[in-house]
Amino acid sequence: MKLLRTTTELINWRHGETRSVGFVPTMGNLHEGHISLLEAALKEHPVAVLSIFVNPTQFGPTEDFTRYPRTLDQDLAHVVALMTRHPGREVVVYAPADPAEVYPAGFATVVAVPALSHFLEGAIRPGHFEGVATVVYLLFQLVKPRTAYFGRKDYQQYRVVKRMARDLGLAIHVKGLAIVRSAEGLALSSRNQYLSEAERVDALILVRTLRDMQQRLGGTAANAPAVRAWASEILAHDPRWQYLEVREARHLGEDLPRKGKVVFLGVLKLGAVRLLDNIEGELI
Amino acid sequence: MKLLRTTTELINWRHGETRSVGFVPTMGNLHEGHISLLEAALKEHPVAVLSIFVNPTQFGPTEDFTRYPRTLDQDLAHVVALMTRHPGREVVVYAPADPAEVYPAGFATVVAVPALSHFLEGAIRPGHFEGVATVVYLLFQLVKPRTAYFGRKDYQQYRVVKRMARDLGLAIHVKGLAIVRSAEGLALSSRNQYLSEAERVDALILVRTLRDMQQRLGGTAANAPAVRAWASEILAHDPRWQYLEVREARHLGEDLPRKGKVVFLGVLKLGAVRLLDNIEGELI
Repeated sequence: MKLLRTTTELINWRHGETRSVGFVPTMGNLHEGHISLLEAALKEHPVAVLSIFVNPTQFGPTEDFTRYPRTLDQDLAHVVALMTRHPGREVVVYAPADPAEVYPAGFATVVAVPALSHFLEGAIRPGHFEGVATVVYLLFQLVKPRTAYFGRKDYQQYRVVKRMARDLGLAIHVKGLAIVRSAEGLALSSRNQYLSEAERVDALILVRTLRDMQQRLGGTAANAPAVRAWASEILAHDPRWQYLEVREARHLGEDLPRKGKVVFLGVLKLGAVRLLDNIEGELI
Repeated sequence: MKLLRTTTELINWRHGETRSVGFVPTMGNLHEGHISLLEAALKEHPVAVLSIFVNPTQFGPTEDFTRYPRTLDQDLAHVVALMTRHPGREVVVYAPADPAEVYPAGFATVVAVPALSHFLEGAIRPGHFEGVATVVYLLFQLVKPRTAYFGRKDYQQYRVVKRMARDLGLAIHVKGLAIVRSAEGLALSSRNQYLSEAERVDALILVRTLRDMQQRLGGTAANAPAVRAWASEILAHDPRWQYLEVREARHLGEDLPRKGKVVFLGVLKLGAVRLLDNIEGELI
């Protein structure tokens, strides 16, 4: 495993690398969800780059960038353990020691996908997806992967990144991988560690409600108004819910097609912890 | 001369081209200013790409995208005449037949440099520089030039593009070339053709006032408040002026350095025609 702490090291390494590269961008504090992405990258490429960078520009002024968990030693141990299962493959960890490695002095450019960024997470976290799209662009430009792997737990982020990479002609295949869940069904997240034991049980209401919602829709767009009325009731009576929606899967529009993919998205706030989840469905 | 009307043709051509490419992006309706850019590109590269594309996204809703002059035949004649002066060099004209060649269906990404885009031209034309930065990014990505040539008449645009190309790691040298002027001193512009003969004379007040302003500053930052008070008087008494400013040359900030480059920028509106001009100076 190579550990690179500066952009110069990354550029020099990339310059000499001729094999196809799979890329997993993360903010560290790795869990099995991240590991599943790295597994996929190593299955499809001789070398995978894992970036670990807590990106300041995707945090809002009221969000706690400085308190985001930074667990580099523990993350590297995860990677080492994973590599024993992939002999002959290589992992390069790019963990810039300072945000200035990614954003040099005077940096002033923004990459954004406004049409996907101002509702759901984007409405609650203004500027978040601009920060995401910009940093992912910069990392793509440095790492030059053939394929990049994202978890579909951050479904809207996945759509923003996929759209951005396509529109900007980056020739990178952006893959969204299935959500990894606990045995009980809780979507894995770095935030889960902040839940009390009781909250971990309460948290299951999130995925259960999404499944309930999917069942109520029953694969029929005509049921959408009734399902949305039902969701509104839940939101009105339980302030822990931030949103609970069904959207067309690609553009995340509210108009559902008669046939095609949809996604059910919800955010439940337990104490200070915002839990995101979604499940995908199909109208038939 | 090659004339390419689709992006597919451009991509195919670029794929087979191994020589270094100079690039001049324009909206057509070429004048000697544009030709000076193409001359520079051909001096420094065996092959130059000239793009002619009236970009819809840099026009505001109240601006007349549909009435922008489209003079392809006349532009091509200019290029043919120029090429006789550069034997052995090649010019490829990329003139997409439709905006969808540049912005495919579903395109939704924006490239922007907010810190340079919300004052001067950006304040009068909201969204303009977002449109410029995005289309220039896309053209850069297609043409893959080593050097791109811009006129410094659109000084703020030049700064936006230079910043964007650097921040996004495009490895393209963005050159800003000196303004080309008429014998009387009027900065060449596609808009000049809309001036009456009397207005062409009136228009000279623009460059003369900028020169006067430069002289009043006298290379000394300490004179800036007096110069700005003088400019405010002009703006207050003559509604044809939209702005008249002195700014630091690189970031276009209002704080002037003690030493270093500055730029004097003005916009004079004669009838329906907005005339932009600037001159560059130095604090010593």
